[in-house]
Amino acid sequence: MTVTTPAGFRSAGIAVGLKSTGKPDLALVVNDGPAPASAVVFTSNRAQANPILWSRKVADNGPARAIILNSGGANCFTGDFGYETTRLTAEAVAAQLGEADAAERVLVCSTGLIGTGDQSFRDKIVNNVPELVARLAADDTTAPAAILTTDSVEKTAVHTGEGWTIGAMAKGAGMLAPGLATMLVVITTDAMLDDAALDRALRGATAPSFDRLDSDGCMSTNDQVTLLASGASGVTPDEAEFAAALVQVCDSLAAQLQADAEGASHDIDIEVRGAASEADAVEVGRSVARNNLFKAAIFGNDPNWGRVLAAIGTTDAAFDPYQVDVSFNGVRLCHAGAPDRPVSECDLTPRRTHVEIDLFAGAHTATIRTNDLTHDYVHENSAYSS
Amino acid sequence: MTVTTPAGFRSAGIAVGLKSTGKPDLALVVNDGPAPASAVVFTSNRAQANPILWSRKVADNGPARAIILNSGGANCFTGDFGYETTRLTAEAVAAQLGEADAAERVLVCSTGLIGTGDQSFRDKIVNNVPELVARLAADDTTAPAAILTTDSVEKTAVHTGEGWTIGAMAKGAGMLAPGLATMLVVITTDAMLDDAALDRALRGATAPSFDRLDSDGCMSTNDQVTLLASGASGVTPDEAEFAAALVQVCDSLAAQLQADAEGASHDIDIEVRGAASEADAVEVGRSVARNNLFKAAIFGNDPNWGRVLAAIGTTDAAFDPYQVDVSFNGVRLCHAGAPDRPVSECDLTPRRTHVEIDLFAGAHTATIRTNDLTHDYVHENSAYSS
Repeated sequence: MTVTTPAGFRSAGIAVGLKSTGKPDLALVVNDGPAPASAVVFTSNRAQANPILWSRKVADNGPARAIILNSGGANCFTGDFGYETTRLTAEAVAAQLGEADAAERVLVCSTGLIGTGDQSFRDKIVNNVPELVARLAADDTTAPAAILTTDSVEKTAVHTGEGWTIGAMAKGAGMLAPGLATMLVVITTDAMLDDAALDRALRGATAPSFDRLDSDGCMSTNDQVTLLASGASGVTPDEAEFAAALVQVCDSLAAQLQADAEGASHDIDIEVRGAASEADAVEVGRSVARNNLFKAAIFGNDPNWGRVLAAIGTTDAAFDPYQVDVSFNGVRLCHAGAPDRPVSECDLTPRRTHVEIDLFAGAHTATIRTNDLTHDYVHENSAYSS
Repeated sequence: MTVTTPAGFRSAGIAVGLKSTGKPDLALVVNDGPAPASAVVFTSNRAQANPILWSRKVADNGPARAIILNSGGANCFTGDFGYETTRLTAEAVAAQLGEADAAERVLVCSTGLIGTGDQSFRDKIVNNVPELVARLAADDTTAPAAILTTDSVEKTAVHTGEGWTIGAMAKGAGMLAPGLATMLVVITTDAMLDDAALDRALRGATAPSFDRLDSDGCMSTNDQVTLLASGASGVTPDEAEFAAALVQVCDSLAAQLQADAEGASHDIDIEVRGAASEADAVEVGRSVARNNLFKAAIFGNDPNWGRVLAAIGTTDAAFDPYQVDVSFNGVRLCHAGAPDRPVSECDLTPRRTHVEIDLFAGAHTATIRTNDLTHDYVHENSAYSS
């Protein structure tokens, strides 16, 4: 169990033919309360899919009743017809839950190829909502598989607090849209918390976790992270304690997304230290995470510190490029603008790779998670839609 | 002949053992006047190689007398020793030219792996300056080959005006540092123009040419474009005419760099139309040029317009994402936020690829040149320094 680990939730996942493989592709999570609350964060891409446009409105309407998610098609840039499909999907869920007037409280997520969302796509989803609802169960294990696209494994996380729990499922072969697979996350809790408290906790938890996962620099049109609370435990946790637990859950999911990133052979943690601000640390780390030459070097097990310096030199962060230290897997290769230890001392064959950059400009730090640039990444993303 | 096509210049290129292949790796261009003038533009990367740090000072000292360029080592992040190597190189050139006090008028460029610049590197360059100077000739053809790194062909351009000429050579397997090969350009002219006129013309010419070539998004630590005028023609061209000629020369070199980009199988021109400003058009085009999913799709001959929209949605440019047209090689695939012509009508097998994006937000336009993301790119850049 994952999203149904907390009390007050039912879920289900089925195959409706959206995926050519015949694998499960439609999932539903229903919040049965008794004190439903919710918070949602969306992609910051201005090009947004129809389910994002719809769900933004739902999020403004107060606690969400349910969230339905499909893989096998992003329903993005499919025009008014696509938006209508999203609305009809929410209406079908509400009708089947016996709350025909509650469609505007049903969140919708889609993931897959942009431009996919025709009549057949609509029919497969809408016509199968009754079966999906009929399969809802409080001990369901089928939902996490139904939201996957190019993912090779299910991603879930659970946290047990004092009298309350958090459950979560995620999909995405890297945040920020490898293969436009996009990232979708559903987190549930039976804690008793209101929308505002959930929103604070969710924004606080996504910033240092998902927001710092940058597998391939490509931002999705369909990303959505949803947090649903049922209140079924009857326990209101300490807000700081809940926030810390949520960070842990999001961090676990971010690590799972990184570990399953399309085509990757290295999971790279870029730790920036000594930054004048946290924003500077993030900017410096991200500039390295998005540098194709650095990423290709890691694929080749080459601790190419020169590419790190070339990348961070493009930022506006406060530091002196000739006073920076760069270490790979604990070996300091560059010190104060010149070569330090020989690169031969550094072994990059393990999948986990740790790059440490000390800017000597302050006391702030941040870690960006990324992956290497590999032949398999190119292959998967040159062949995805053909 | 290239940089020696204009009167008043001599050049030479020799092999001094910086490259493991034994190919030519040291070049020199000397401006014999009678009315020397120069202008230089440098990489905007804050992480700058020692020859850049040196040449910035030279550029402030008035007309440059000569420029010496080596491949086989970037002399970047090599500390004080590396800077001293650059200074000694300039001094050796000045001494051999019989102007021992003129070292501060000798520009230096280096290209190759960052962190390379030890005693052996220094000795090979400095000790071979006498031979290099001895080989200087007004009908030289050896200089362009000596500045290449991963380039597969020499890049040169010539323009003939009324009584004056422009010659040029370039290296770089893509602007902005594929393999940290970096881009170096030397342009000569026998026109009679002063430093200020050359500077205006050079900045005006690099902005729409080299600055809009973005092969892999990675900015170099060693990029330098140098324009030297000898005045040997005795002709002062109309400034607008000279500027237009210089744009043509730079544009030709930019196209040659794109065509020889590391591992590329497509030369992609991203034409942005209907932008509210030229800056918006450049920003939108660059966001697509730097999107790995788009670049991998082109490699797979997949006209994936969804990835174009996902990329431009991350910009701050003024436009409505749901009112954008996207065409590939003349076939409009997306119109007003929905699919238009079937992708099967679009043939991406030719190397030249034209992507047109109409933002319907104004009258401005810009074209960014880029390349696709291929297995060969990953291969070359994962194996470069190992």
